[in-house]
Amino acid sequence: MPLVRIELQRGKPAEYRRTLAEQVYEAMRDAIKIPENDKFVVITERDPDNFIYDRNYLGIQRSDDFVLIQIVFRRGRPVEMKQEFYKRLTERLQESLALRPSDVFVSLLENGAEDWSFGDGIAQYVK
Amino acid sequence: MPLVRIELQRGKPAEYRRTLAEQVYEAMRDAIKIPENDKFVVITERDPDNFIYDRNYLGIQRSDDFVLIQIVFRRGRPVEMKQEFYKRLTERLQESLALRPSDVFVSLLENGAEDWSFGDGIAQYVK
Amino acid sequence: MPLVRIELQRGKPAEYRRTLAEQVYEAMRDAIKIPENDKFVVITERDPDNFIYDRNYLGIQRSDDFVLIQIVFRRGRPVEMKQEFYKRLTERLQESLALRPSDVFVSLLENGAEDWSFGDGIAQYVK
Repeated sequence: MPLVRIELQRGKPAEYRRTLAEQVYEAMRDAIKIPENDKFVVITERDPDNFIYDRNYLGIQRSDDFVLIQIVFRRGRPVEMKQEFYKRLTERLQESLALRPSDVFVSLLENGAEDWSFGDGIAQYVK
Repeated sequence: MPLVRIELQRGKPAEYRRTLAEQVYEAMRDAIKIPENDKFVVITERDPDNFIYDRNYLGIQRSDDFVLIQIVFRRGRPVEMKQEFYKRLTERLQESLALRPSDVFVSLLENGAEDWSFGDGIAQYVK
Repeated sequence: MPLVRIELQRGKPAEYRRTLAEQVYEAMRDAIKIPENDKFVVITERDPDNFIYDRNYLGIQRSDDFVLIQIVFRRGRPVEMKQEFYKRLTERLQESLALRPSDVFVSLLENGAEDWSFGDGIAQYVK
């Protein structure tokens, strides 16, 4: 169910981007308890002209490796679960890609069970 | 008012993509009662590297023709209306493009009347 | 905190797009009181095929210069603040880029303080 949009500067190889998507999924498995194989990710590689971010907002140093991640999932997860997700995500990206935690930006959006159709014209999460 | 984002794998002709956008609009006309001509759609054609989706999540078979649709509209539509939309959408896409219902993914987001400006610096839906 | 997505037709120079992003930020500074340097913007240049909008919905004339702006920020801003933002934004874009107010479309989405991590694996806005 989570729908993930990842933005990063153009120039990273396919393997790097694949790992990025995979680690976002795994961090959600760890922290947010999403179902197995619930993986829907779009990645956009951007020219610097079209990817504008402050390099120092809140005193956090952002480099050319900056990654912006937007995720939509269902309402109901407590604050602590989201905090655990941010933590796990940066740990995983640092381990797997040597991506600095200061280069990982996340923004979440929530909706309802009735707001998802995974195919077949049906809202699968509505009981 | 609905703002529609469509993602699909690169390779479909312009006519196919135009029909896709048009049928999303028509299904919203049918099921969600959006106003005539309320049509704002962006389409992104993606390389497989940057378009990651599970081919079997919830037992639904997804192919290279998989289409991911995200729509934002105003709060207040009942669950039944959304379910009718998913149904109409897959029917329409199957009829017009021979797109399999199992290849149609939808995620909805909602906001308020004050969250839209259609131009001229005004929130047209605020009374 | 605001996460801004700007869509426009391909063909405008880098300087035009940079100004567009900057003016969205400045209008949010003016009207919505976002913090200084809180600037995160992605811009997508689109072929006409993949950028579909009604040229006359609600009687507003939209041209090839049409710009679609989606912004996510935290819940809690009153309607009047959003209305002021739409007004300031169109004024600024008209002054700086001669962009017609009728070509400026905005859609807002809201989330919570816990839905943002600006880096370092932490939800900075959670107290």
